[in-house]
Amino acid sequence: MKKIEFYFDISSPYSYLAHEQIKLFEKNNKFSVTYMPILLGGIHQLANITAPGLNPSRAKHMIKDLKICADWYKIKFQFNRYFPLKTINIMRGAIVAEKEGFLKNYTESFFKAAWVDSLNLNDNKILEKFLKNLDINPSKFLEKINNQKIKDDLKNRTTAAYKKGVFGAPTFIVGSKMFFGQDRLEFVYREAKK
Amino acid sequence: MKKIEFYFDISSPYSYLAHEQIKLFEKNNKFSVTYMPILLGGIHQLANITAPGLNPSRAKHMIKDLKICADWYKIKFQFNRYFPLKTINIMRGAIVAEKEGFLKNYTESFFKAAWVDSLNLNDNKILEKFLKNLDINPSKFLEKINNQKIKDDLKNRTTAAYKKGVFGAPTFIVGSKMFFGQDRLEFVYREAKK
Repeated sequence: MKKIEFYFDISSPYSYLAHEQIKLFEKNNKFSVTYMPILLGGIHQLANITAPGLNPSRAKHMIKDLKICADWYKIKFQFNRYFPLKTINIMRGAIVAEKEGFLKNYTESFFKAAWVDSLNLNDNKILEKFLKNLDINPSKFLEKINNQKIKDDLKNRTTAAYKKGVFGAPTFIVGSKMFFGQDRLEFVYREAKK
Repeated sequence: MKKIEFYFDISSPYSYLAHEQIKLFEKNNKFSVTYMPILLGGIHQLANITAPGLNPSRAKHMIKDLKICADWYKIKFQFNRYFPLKTINIMRGAIVAEKEGFLKNYTESFFKAAWVDSLNLNDNKILEKFLKNLDINPSKFLEKINNQKIKDDLKNRTTAAYKKGVFGAPTFIVGSKMFFGQDRLEFVYREAKK
């Protein structure tokens, strides 16, 4: 099977739906998808796109559509009541987690915090408490994510993704083919199996 | 089965993909979907949305995604080389066609002209020739679509759709539920059959 890159940001509810579907796919196919942390806000800025959740007409529909899609795939879901989530620290943390070998657990925990438990991840106190529950030392973690190299790393990955054509999340890249949206996963799997 | 409203504009390639899928559904279920002509440009203006086809990053991906979706559903498709299509006259004509009882044939012909035969529908000479082939007298047709009542009718329908929550095309309304995108038709059918 070809490598599947999954570009995501914890702030993106459709990325969460993709993540849940990918977990099933990985289990059934004994295959590991490559998680690619990016900053969705940065991508939108580079591509000159207003996030759907920030346009009143689209946001109203999106919340209903997410629920319908989640129910269809039997995925637990609750639209975060503190939306939009500012995830720059969380996504910098994803890079730390990747370097230290626990990206998948980290991603799983934060997706659940954002889109099942509806935690206010914009509040640093709640974020610190949540990190403690993950057995991550909050002050050490904050020190790591404030390292300029980590900041630059997230920025560079975001720019690199945009240059590859990524303009939103979730996006999947298989070889030279790009797919956008959790509703395109069938096409992603088919491409990877070609 | 509940009434299914299908909001469309000939300028929208995803509306064409929906139209082709709906034709199969109608045939298999002996059921008629209600076609609702609107002006997509007007909807986007009201909702403060940039059409995906007018954003370079999104447009580049959209053309590939349309091809993948069309192939998946075995629908003939060619991205119109004269995109974006200015369809205000064509959509005013759809209202005339509806009033005179040939909306489905009219829609079918224009979707095919736009998204299979890649005609330059922005060119009035090509449009006139195409109307003649449809056994429509071009000068009579132009007179009808320039009637203020027809102009107002399209404008009012577009505003009414926006007020119902429509922000793009294709959109489907079944009772109080709204669905956006040709990739949501499974949900539309399920809702209609409830």
